[in-house]
Formats: sequence, structure tokens, C-alpha cells
Amino acid sequence: MIYFDSDYMEGAHHEVMRRLVETNLEHTVGYGNDPYTLQAKDAIRQACGCPEALVQLLEGGTQTNATVIDALLRRHEGVLAAESAHINVHESGAIEHSGHKVLTLPAANGKLSAEQVDRFITDFYRDETYEHMVAPGMLYITQPTEYGTLYSLSELTALSRVCHRHHIPLYLDGARLGYALASPMADFTLQDIARLCEVFYIGGTKCGLLFGEAVVAPNPDTLPHFFPVVKQHGALCAKGRILGIQFLTLFTDNLYQQICSHAIGLAKRIREAFVSAGYQLAIDSPTNQQFFLLPNEMVDFLRDKGVSFEDWGVRGENETTVRFVTSWATTDEAVDELVRCINLHGNDR
Amino acid sequence: MIYFDSDYMEGAHHEVMRRLVETNLEHTVGYGNDPYTLQAKDAIRQACGCPEALVQLLEGGTQTNATVIDALLRRHEGVLAAESAHINVHESGAIEHSGHKVLTLPAANGKLSAEQVDRFITDFYRDETYEHMVAPGMLYITQPTEYGTLYSLSELTALSRVCHRHHIPLYLDGARLGYALASPMADFTLQDIARLCEVFYIGGTKCGLLFGEAVVAPNPDTLPHFFPVVKQHGALCAKGRILGIQFLTLFTDNLYQQICSHAIGLAKRIREAFVSAGYQLAIDSPTNQQFFLLPNEMVDFLRDKGVSFEDWGVRGENETTVRFVTSWATTDEAVDELVRCINLHGNDR
Amino acid sequence: MIYFDSDYMEGAHHEVMRRLVETNLEHTVGYGNDPYTLQAKDAIRQACGCPEALVQLLEGGTQTNATVIDALLRRHEGVLAAESAHINVHESGAIEHSGHKVLTLPAANGKLSAEQVDRFITDFYRDETYEHMVAPGMLYITQPTEYGTLYSLSELTALSRVCHRHHIPLYLDGARLGYALASPMADFTLQDIARLCEVFYIGGTKCGLLFGEAVVAPNPDTLPHFFPVVKQHGALCAKGRILGIQFLTLFTDNLYQQICSHAIGLAKRIREAFVSAGYQLAIDSPTNQQFFLLPNEMVDFLRDKGVSFEDWGVRGENETTVRFVTSWATTDEAVDELVRCINLHGNDR
Amino acid sequence: MIYFDSDYMEGAHHEVMRRLVETNLEHTVGYGNDPYTLQAKDAIRQACGCPEALVQLLEGGTQTNATVIDALLRRHEGVLAAESAHINVHESGAIEHSGHKVLTLPAANGKLSAEQVDRFITDFYRDETYEHMVAPGMLYITQPTEYGTLYSLSELTALSRVCHRHHIPLYLDGARLGYALASPMADFTLQDIARLCEVFYIGGTKCGLLFGEAVVAPNPDTLPHFFPVVKQHGALCAKGRILGIQFLTLFTDNLYQQICSHAIGLAKRIREAFVSAGYQLAIDSPTNQQFFLLPNEMVDFLRDKGVSFEDWGVRGENETTVRFVTSWATTDEAVDELVRCINLHGNDR
Repeated sequence: MIYFDSDYMEGAHHEVMRRLVETNLEHTVGYGNDPYTLQAKDAIRQACGCPEALVQLLEGGTQTNATVIDALLRRHEGVLAAESAHINVHESGAIEHSGHKVLTLPAANGKLSAEQVDRFITDFYRDETYEHMVAPGMLYITQPTEYGTLYSLSELTALSRVCHRHHIPLYLDGARLGYALASPMADFTLQDIARLCEVFYIGGTKCGLLFGEAVVAPNPDTLPHFFPVVKQHGALCAKGRILGIQFLTLFTDNLYQQICSHAIGLAKRIREAFVSAGYQLAIDSPTNQQFFLLPNEMVDFLRDKGVSFEDWGVRGENETTVRFVTSWATTDEAVDELVRCINLHGNDR
Repeated sequence: MIYFDSDYMEGAHHEVMRRLVETNLEHTVGYGNDPYTLQAKDAIRQACGCPEALVQLLEGGTQTNATVIDALLRRHEGVLAAESAHINVHESGAIEHSGHKVLTLPAANGKLSAEQVDRFITDFYRDETYEHMVAPGMLYITQPTEYGTLYSLSELTALSRVCHRHHIPLYLDGARLGYALASPMADFTLQDIARLCEVFYIGGTKCGLLFGEAVVAPNPDTLPHFFPVVKQHGALCAKGRILGIQFLTLFTDNLYQQICSHAIGLAKRIREAFVSAGYQLAIDSPTNQQFFLLPNEMVDFLRDKGVSFEDWGVRGENETTVRFVTSWATTDEAVDELVRCINLHGNDR
Repeated sequence: MIYFDSDYMEGAHHEVMRRLVETNLEHTVGYGNDPYTLQAKDAIRQACGCPEALVQLLEGGTQTNATVIDALLRRHEGVLAAESAHINVHESGAIEHSGHKVLTLPAANGKLSAEQVDRFITDFYRDETYEHMVAPGMLYITQPTEYGTLYSLSELTALSRVCHRHHIPLYLDGARLGYALASPMADFTLQDIARLCEVFYIGGTKCGLLFGEAVVAPNPDTLPHFFPVVKQHGALCAKGRILGIQFLTLFTDNLYQQICSHAIGLAKRIREAFVSAGYQLAIDSPTNQQFFLLPNEMVDFLRDKGVSFEDWGVRGENETTVRFVTSWATTDEAVDELVRCINLHGNDR
Repeated sequence: MIYFDSDYMEGAHHEVMRRLVETNLEHTVGYGNDPYTLQAKDAIRQACGCPEALVQLLEGGTQTNATVIDALLRRHEGVLAAESAHINVHESGAIEHSGHKVLTLPAANGKLSAEQVDRFITDFYRDETYEHMVAPGMLYITQPTEYGTLYSLSELTALSRVCHRHHIPLYLDGARLGYALASPMADFTLQDIARLCEVFYIGGTKCGLLFGEAVVAPNPDTLPHFFPVVKQHGALCAKGRILGIQFLTLFTDNLYQQICSHAIGLAKRIREAFVSAGYQLAIDSPTNQQFFLLPNEMVDFLRDKGVSFEDWGVRGENETTVRFVTSWATTDEAVDELVRCINLHGNDR
């Protein structure tokens, strides 16, 4: 079997495991006050170019979104997001559990435009009954989006400006941020993200760690009293050092970048193999998730050959949209084999 | 330095780390549907003697308490607990965050009596205004308690009966349950716990794992729709197998019991050393937390010798209550050295 | 000035005021246990043809929706509703404040179809990731809708069937229910509503009372422990009898029906006057809210003549949608004057 | 029958009813933007001596407490209150429903001391684990307390100072504030309350109105965005003018003061009658609630004579604590009759 189901199906990058084993018996204080966590935070601050940033290491993506959004919003405010946003679709109502509405905007391939956001907020305050409605208190975006697409630097800049104009924070969900940064289409850096967003998180779970997400607020005043809010959300890791050691390893010797570039290179090979074999892209994604519209017969053929991947939505009558995902754990050999299968089918016909 | 600060200051038992490394590159499905998690759940069911139990692996203690209590209570109900209960004191209001009041009872050394609980509930429903008050919807206890003390089998049985009589579930927080079971004073087994409680959790974070707590509901109908509630609480681990592999290791070849017995043996040695040197127990604890009332001069002497441990509360004028904790990670050599220091001081005087 | 702004701009029907004054110095117990409230509940049960129903008198519409929906849903569930639903748009996030997501469906003129609801729920459970999503736990509809439109008996029956098939309750927001029942287009009775809905409320605030909404659950088991949930929501009226006396008056001698028929008759006259003068209906509403698309010049003319009414949405370049609302308090004379103004303008041109 | 059960058992003062009837058919805008509400707010601002104050009229006490406390606290904070506080005992967990813990202090006769509050907060921040605990974010007191007792001006001043020193707001629940102000023991004015509290409310339900409580924040910045928070709590009255007219009447021609003085005078007569007949005060209350420890035989005798009043707590073996409450609605004749009964019993023995 070769696997392209998702990017959280294995353990952690071997260097991360090596460091966890190496430090295993060291005795440190808890709750993230250990030296490894402090070093990890510094390494992240440096990578982001924001030496004063508040950095908090949390355990998972839904937990991170729920905690950050609850910390950013006032009680009567909601979070503006794309209809397809993870927080709106796949977090079992975690945002609403803390009392906040997700205010949705239609989105093409997961992306919101600055114009759209501006129009929504402007119209909102023009409505005479706006005090009976949920005020947009922040903007949530994902980079890359749920569809693997990217915001360009100018799009991010425009979103940031619109947020500033309306005095709301911009929060970027970076569950797969590393794959965005490593994309050949990326015209932005981690420093740009840190410059343009009030808060963002650097996802570890899908980028080489056992688990862990690093929340970054370049200006720490953006998230006052964040520690007790984290604890209240059940999001405080007792052995914080486990997160610290992992993130420190990820931000040492460019491991984060190297891991993600590896995955992007393999995704590109998969894309090219399908396209040159005449198959159609379902979404034009420059990151580690690739979406194709394949004839069902091809879908079945590949699965028959031991290739594992997900249908994206419901199987169609004749054709189905499918997703192939690469990660730090995907091997060149697995992609060689996939390419062989794609071409084999072509020759079979 | 030798450390007796707490039981979550190191990584994980080496066997746990070995299995994590060994399985690291295996490809499994996410969210706890992998074979390791399924096997771990079966191993836990078997150890508890309840083959039908719902078992859910979560990440940390506060998260587990918040999720379970929210799942058990109806919206107008509160949780009955000791004033000193972890959920009442040290969880930053995580229970209230989900909308539930903690109804407190005074407790000697962390323990509630069945009589006390019975009286509270009986008086509650006798009050003509009870529908204006928060109804006691469940009982929360810790075993061992925050003070290291234990409920005996007959005490647990009485609490269970009182809960049944009043039709509320009994939930046992077993953050350190292994150290209770391994205590020479324990007259109950894990099966007894499973027989007497509607829900309980087996703590892994303090008993040999990197992190992880296993929720057990012997009758799965007790926690309907628990999966989305877990997700909603941000408590669902994407790479569930990391929890699965750890708990499977803990429940293979009696590792859980062996680890905890080791800690209890060392705690006993520490206790005997202090007592025979003439020092006073602050609390009579039969588990891995030992509390002594030491002259400040002795406190300082030990710290001077490189012994690390916590003050329990505020330092007194002449004497201070201190806590010594052992764990799977405490070595015989560390306790040898501590005993040597205790005796050395005696001889110095 | 003559007013057609809305139906909650005056006090209460004079008979209601008379009874409030008449009973003012009587001494009764609080919290709705007084004889007037008990009689009002019986009168409502009888009008609904459900002698066992739980009836609870609350203070306002948003409060009622928030309390009922919180009482009906399990913690991981959301409420299915039209995008235009009052709970989704104009309640400042009161539903989310209790932790529940509003799951929206597009709606033509405020109405949902049974097919649409069926498809949503069916698709929901077909999605393999549904346990990561907010489950539809109930259906919320308004009758009449926010646009004055009505569900027919067969449409209500179909919605009820679809809810039964999927085991979720149907909740009907009847803020203006009286105006629905009094409509010439109504092919349903209050008994039909009671037969088809698990819970509904009979709005008093917009139908002749100072304030007050009567929640009805034909089967009381649908809303267990409702009293403390009401109290918890801050929705329990200390002097419950004020609600009781008002509702008892409303359900004595057909006052409710008579009041609402009066308003419907006047709405019909307004509609006919505009239509026969050649103006266009914006929405075809058979209830007490009438929507017209008027030339701005006509809008200004009427306002100039002292006619008060609301723009419905933003004023257009040349034409604007406007709303005229009648109520128990609208007089024949006011409508005479309005009709005169409409015709006057025609003659002016 | 003569009634001394409580102070919310009748309708409203006749002047209030008269004004409601008189204005009944006037047409005004909704949600508290009508002229009567605006005038009422001005009258309240003037009575409080704070011309800039935010004043918001709400419907009931629990609703008011839940809304104000939710508006004042940050998400990780709790409200400090007496164990006997209404919010801790008799509001069905409405505070916790919005996610906030009630942090309780023991209280003699319902009163907290500044020293006690100071010590709690000081100790809180001395605890090294305080970030794992619920931070005291405001102080809640009742005036008069649930036991009818009063804080003196110097006690209020000390509480205010302690709050300022610790940078938390002082919130005063004035459900019966009028009876405090009218007490002969009162050495403070409404202006003093407004000077010393960040927020307080003037209760109308128990002081002459059908329903209604007026929240006052002398500095409006204390409660930013209060309107949508009120709406979100389901606490916004559509026909706001009903509250406006009532409060305007109450604050015209000293009606509030006059009503409450009347009740206090009658309470004093009841107290003197019992005391001079040799009965014991259970609590020494200078307000409209009087508590006596009566022989059960006397309790039964009075009830037999048609005197209605409440047991305060559980009936004792020989003696029972009982409560007699007066209000604007209590008549001189009723008190004459009660005094007659008390004396009659004395003569009977």
C-alpha cells in the first residue's frame, strides 16, 4: 500500500523523535516554563522576526482556534470567516460552545477577498438594526485554505488593511502553514505573516510533529491573560516540554522548511503525472494537497493497485473529485510507484 | 539535584518511548480509529472487567474533567464536589466555562462522606425554592485525593449507593489512580472502581505517559454522543494513535501496576525516613504524595543539599508543610540520597 | 401622524389594561403559581386542544427562542433554520451564547421546504466526517415568516413528517402567530399547529399585550426540567401573574382572534389600495405585514403627508421596498387616511 | 387574610398603573428609544447625581445580574460574592450559564467586610498557581442584603476602596435598594451609592412596579457595548416604554422614596409589636424584611388568624425563624390587625 490520504497519518519526523528520546529522563518544570519551551518560543520569535511576540504552544487545531477566537472576541462579537472555513464546518461547534457566532461569507476555493470583507462590515454598520445583530469582531482565514489554495502577499496585505480600517484583528489558521511557505507560488515569508496578522498559528501536527500548534501574537497585548484562558479551555499541556522539544527541533536547522519543501516537491510530481496523463485538476492548488477530477474507473484502478487516497465529497456517477496529500512522511519511492500506476493505466487503455 | 517536586516532570516510561519510536513511520487512520487505539481500548476494558465499556483517550486532566462533566450534566445541573476538588480550585473555571456550577462541600483531607452527600441532596430537594437553585446532577471525587488520601472500598460503595439512590452518576477523577491501586492501603481493584462508578478516568500523564487520560464508562449509554462533545471541547487528538500506543503499552505486561508500585515503594521509604528521624506527617497519605511538617531549618538544609520539593501552601514562621512526590521516574538512588540527607541532618544537630 | 411602522409600538389592548388595573391590588404568589396564570395556561391548552400541554409564560421573543432552543438541544447539536430566520439575524447571537450553532438553509421569502430539510439532514449523515460537524438537532420555523408569508397546512405537515423521520423536534416561532391564524389564506388552526409542532410559542407582545410569549409543548416530556432552565436564562417573571392576567384576557371571549382579524382586515385594505393604484407588491404576504416596491417619489409623498412606515432594507436609487404593518391598535380612520393619501397622489400626477 | 409573605405579590403602585393606562395608546418607537424611557433615564441620572451615567432598564433581577456580570467580567474571571448571595444561591446557575464562576466568601448576615475581600484578593495573587485559578474580576454585594441588613456608608466606602486598590469594579444589587435608602439606619444616599459603585441597579419589581430594574453605570465606559450584550441575554424589552413609563413615574415627585418609607414605617411597627410582646429578633434588620424566632405555637396561632408569612428555612422542633415583609402595598390596617393578633395571643396565654 502507498498512502496519500492525509498529512497526519504517521508519528513525527525522526529528528523530533530522537530529541524526545534523548531528553526523556531530564527533569523540568511543567506547564511550559521549562527551558526547551522557552528556547522554542525564542526560535519561533526569531523565525517570525518579532522578538516581543507572545508564543503559546497548544495541542491541536480545533483547540487552538477555539481558544484564540474566544480570547480575541468580546462576548457580543462573532468571527467572520469563509463558509468553507474549518471553524464553520469541521469543529463540531467549538466556536459556538464558547458563545460566539461564525459569520460566514461565500468563498471561491476557500478564499475571501478584501473587498468582500470590507463590504460586509460596511453594510453591517449601515444597517439600522445592527445592534440587534452579531458584530464582526475579527477575521479568520486559513493559509493554505481547506482547498490547498494560497493568499498572495498582496491579498494578505489587502485583508490586513481592511481589518485595520475596521479595527478588528486578523487571525490566520496555519494548520498547514509550512506547506504554504514552501510552495513555489508563495510570494510571502513567515515574517510577512507575522507583520500582517494580529494572531496566527504555526501548525505542527500536520508538519512533522506528534502534535502541537504554536500560537503567535506579534504584539503580546493582543492576547492579554492568555494563560488562564488556555487553562480554562483545557488546552494547557502539563508536560509542556513535550511541545517545547518538538517545536525547538522543528525550528532548528531549517527542519520545518526542509520537511515542507520535501512534501511540496512530491505534490508537484503527482500533479504533473496526472496532468500529463490527461487528467483534470479539480482545484488548482500549489501546496501539498492536490485535487483531481478522475474517471471512476481510474479511481478504482488506482485503489486496486494499492494506492490509498480520499474522495473529496460524494462519489459522482462517472467522475469523482479525489485528493492526494503529501507530507514529510511521504517517500520518493511511494510517488515513483504512484506515477508508475498512473502511466500504467494510460498504457492499459 | 534530586527531584521530588511532582510526578509529571519527566517524559515517559522508556517502554512507552520505545513503542512510539518503533511504530513511528507506520501509516494509520486518524482520530482514534487506528488499530493501536482499538487494542488499547480493549486492554483497558479487560483490565476494568467491563467488556462493553466506552473508552475514550483524551489529552489532559482539566480537558477530561471539563468534557466528561459537560457530557454528563443537563444544562441546569451542577457537579457536587469537595471544596478542595481540582475542578473547583485549579482548573481556571473550565467547568463553569461550559455553563455548570461546582457545588461544594467541606472536605477533610479531600474526602467526602456518603452521609454528607446524602444530606446535601436530601436537603436540596426539601427546600421549597429548589427549582431556583442549581440541582446536583453528578458527584465528582478524586482517587487518590489532592491530599494523597484514599477512599476505602466501603466508602466508595457507600458513595455509589447514595448516588444511585438519588439517580445521579458518580465520576471519579483518576489522574493518579495507579498510585491509589498500588497503595498497600488499597482494598479495592480497578474492577471495583469500574463497578462502582458511572464514569472514571485512568490518568496517564502522571503515571508514565507523555500525556493522555483514558475515560471509561462501563455502560456506554452513560455518555451518548461523546465523540462530537469531545471534538467540540477541542479534545480530539488528530493522531489518536499516539495516545493509543502509549495506553496499549501501559496496559501490556502489567506496566501500569509495576510503574506505580515502584513509586509507592519509594514513597514509603521517604515516609519512614522522615518519621523515624522524628518528623511529623502533615497528612497521613498512603500514596505517592507525602506531606510533612518540617522545621524551616530542615527545609532549608535539604534544599541546600540539592533536594527539590514543593512547599504545600505558604511557608510558616517556624515550620512549613512540604510535599515529596515519587513517580515511575524516581530512582532508588535518589531516595537513598534523600534518606542520607535526612539522617545526616539528624547527626548534625 | 398615522403609524404603520410595526405592531409593538403601543401599550396593550384596553381589555388587557382593564384587567391589569382591576386585579392590581390582589395578593397572589409569585413565579407563575398564581390562579390567573394557572387559568391562562388552561385557556391556552384548551385553545390548542392539548389538555396535557406544558405551558410557560415568558417575557419576550429572543428570550423565548434562546430558552426553548437551549432546552431542546443536546450540547453538540445545532438548530436548523432559514438564513433569514430571526434567530440567525436579529438576536445578537443569543442562541450561540448558550453554545449552539444556527445551521442555515437558503430560504425563499423566509420559508423552508420539507425537501430541503430532508436533503440537508440526509446529506449530513452521509458525510463520513459528520461527527466532526454540528448535528441538526431541531428545526426552527417562523409562522408567519419574517416576510409575512405563511406555511400552508400541507407544508407544515410535510415539515413535521420530515422532522419525525429524522427524530428531531419541530419548533415554531409564533411571535405573530395570531396574524397567521387570522389570515384568509390560513388553512390551518391553532390545534393543527399544536398537533404538528413539538414546541411553539404564541406571541403576545405583537398581538395585544404589553409583553409576553406563551411557550406550548403539547407533550410536556419534550421540555423536562424547563422551570430551572427558564430561571437560568433570566426569563422567569417574579410577578408571573402579570403575564397570566394578560394571556387569560387574550384567550377569553376570542379576544386574540378578534384583535388579529381586525389587523388582517386593515392590512388587506392597504394592500388593495396600493395595488389598485398601480403599485407593485414586493412580497405577496397574506398577513399583517405588507411589502410594496414604491417609487421614491411616492415614499416621500406619503411621509410628507404624515404617514409613518419603514424602509425594508436600503433605499434604492429610484424605488424602495417599504413595509406597512397593522395591529390591534391600528384604527379604521388611520387606514382611511392612508388610502386617501394613496389615491390623492394618483390624482396629483 | 393579611399578607406579609413578600414584596412582589401585588401589581404596581396605582400611580404607575394610572400612567400606563393614560399613555397606553400613544405610539412610540421600540427598544427603549421612546421619550418616556429617555426621560426616565434622565430622572434616574439626576436622582443619582451622575449626569453622564449609562442607564439601561431591564426586566428582572436574575436577568439583570446575569447580564451585568457577564458584561463586566473578562472570560477567565469570576465574581466575588457572599456565600449567601442571591447569585450564588437562587439564580439557577445563571452566572455560570454565561461561563463565570461565583467565588464565595463566608458572610455574617449577608455582609462582606473590606478586610475579608482584601485578604482574599491578596492571598489569591500570592498563590504561585493563581493562573490556574479563577481570578476575582469584580465584587458583588446586595444592599440591603438577603437578610435585610445594611452596609453603612463607611463599610461601603471601605469596600469601594478595596476594589479600587485591586482594580476591580464594585457592583451593587439593589433589588430592594429603596428600602435600604428609606431605612432610619441609612447613613448613605443614592448619590453615595452612585459615587462608590461602578455599577448598581435600582430594583423596581419589589418597589412598586409591575416589573423592571434600572442598571446604572455612573461612568458609561464601564459597560461598553452594553446594548448588544443585553439583547444577547434576551433581556431587551421590545416595548421599552413600558419600563420607561414605570420608572419615570417612580422617579417623579419622590414616589420611590415615599413608597419605600411607607413600607419601612410599617416594618418598624411590626418589629416593635413582636419585641414588646417578648419575641426574639432572629436577625436585626433595619429594612422592610423582619425576621423573628417564634415559638411554633405562635407561628400556628398567627396563621390560624389569617396572617400569611414565610418560614425562613426549615421549621424547628419548638421554634421557627419566620420572615415578615412589608411593601408599598401593605396597608396600615393590615399591620393594625397583625399587631392585634400578636397582642391577643399574649393575653390568651
